[in-house]
Amino acid sequence: MGWVRTATAVVHHGAFVSLYRDSVLRPDGRPGTYEHVTVNDGVRVVALDDNGRVVLVEDDFYLQRRRVLHLPGGGCGGQSPQEAALRELEEETGLVAGDVHQLGVIDPMPAVTSARTFLFLATDLRPGLRRRDATEIGMTQQWRQFQDAVEAVRNGEITEAGSVAALLLAQPARR
Amino acid sequence: MGWVRTATAVVHHGAFVSLYRDSVLRPDGRPGTYEHVTVNDGVRVVALDDNGRVVLVEDDFYLQRRRVLHLPGGGCGGQSPQEAALRELEEETGLVAGDVHQLGVIDPMPAVTSARTFLFLATDLRPGLRRRDATEIGMTQQWRQFQDAVEAVRNGEITEAGSVAALLLAQPARR
Repeated sequence: MGWVRTATAVVHHGAFVSLYRDSVLRPDGRPGTYEHVTVNDGVRVVALDDNGRVVLVEDDFYLQRRRVLHLPGGGCGGQSPQEAALRELEEETGLVAGDVHQLGVIDPMPAVTSARTFLFLATDLRPGLRRRDATEIGMTQQWRQFQDAVEAVRNGEITEAGSVAALLLAQPARR
Repeated sequence: MGWVRTATAVVHHGAFVSLYRDSVLRPDGRPGTYEHVTVNDGVRVVALDDNGRVVLVEDDFYLQRRRVLHLPGGGCGGQSPQEAALRELEEETGLVAGDVHQLGVIDPMPAVTSARTFLFLATDLRPGLRRRDATEIGMTQQWRQFQDAVEAVRNGEITEAGSVAALLLAQPARR
């Protein structure tokens, strides 16, 4: 392993984002510093109904200053990825899933944070009880045929990394 | 637009990572704080040779404490995404590309940072001149048939978000 940590300092400890400055020996043996961030692991869910449609949500994103179309999902918040996926699906769409399995996992920015995004396929959908939280009151939802959602990835309408990866991975493998 | 910024404060200004704490009005109209990070935009390159093979690189990643297999790429560092893609390809693999076009763009962690990752397909490859930098001295490279690289995404061997998205997007669309 080329990198060695020799010390770590907390630059900022926040509710959602913390920043650390580590002292390191780099792969060439020289001393250096490495700043990195901790944030919650995340989840995204491809929820497919019995007619081959997938549910998408759209919401105001603060940093992008626009509405962003993406799969249901969010932060794990101390839950297992699968528990978080089912909770976020129900909060954001009102749906509970009878069947869920993991499609994969991605490292969104591995040079900046070790946080991962876990990707799920949920089926056997029925109405649930949980509601959106106060930051999600402008969220809207829409259903699209699965291949139309994949086309929305290909044409750049969907760009959120977990949604891009989950939709493309949910396609059957070709041989 | 549901979010309103009322003030911003620099928590930390670093060489690679900066952290801000904004005062906001949330979508429900209540005051709150929103912490976010700025980092370099990034690039990833699917470089395909005339035999249908793609070049992958593997390197020690500090935060993951293991070797990570991914497409050539890195930070834009003030260049345009396409210029950065060609520079990173040459630095990491010694290859220059006669033809390059953009496959797409992803938002790796849009709730945390507005940084984007730009995805390219490069062809017409030939040997170049540039070399790896000091942090990349343990980097190795390997060639795989394109469909084997896609399979490495599907089986979880490749998890870096830009590499996952670029390889899946480089597959021809199915109808």
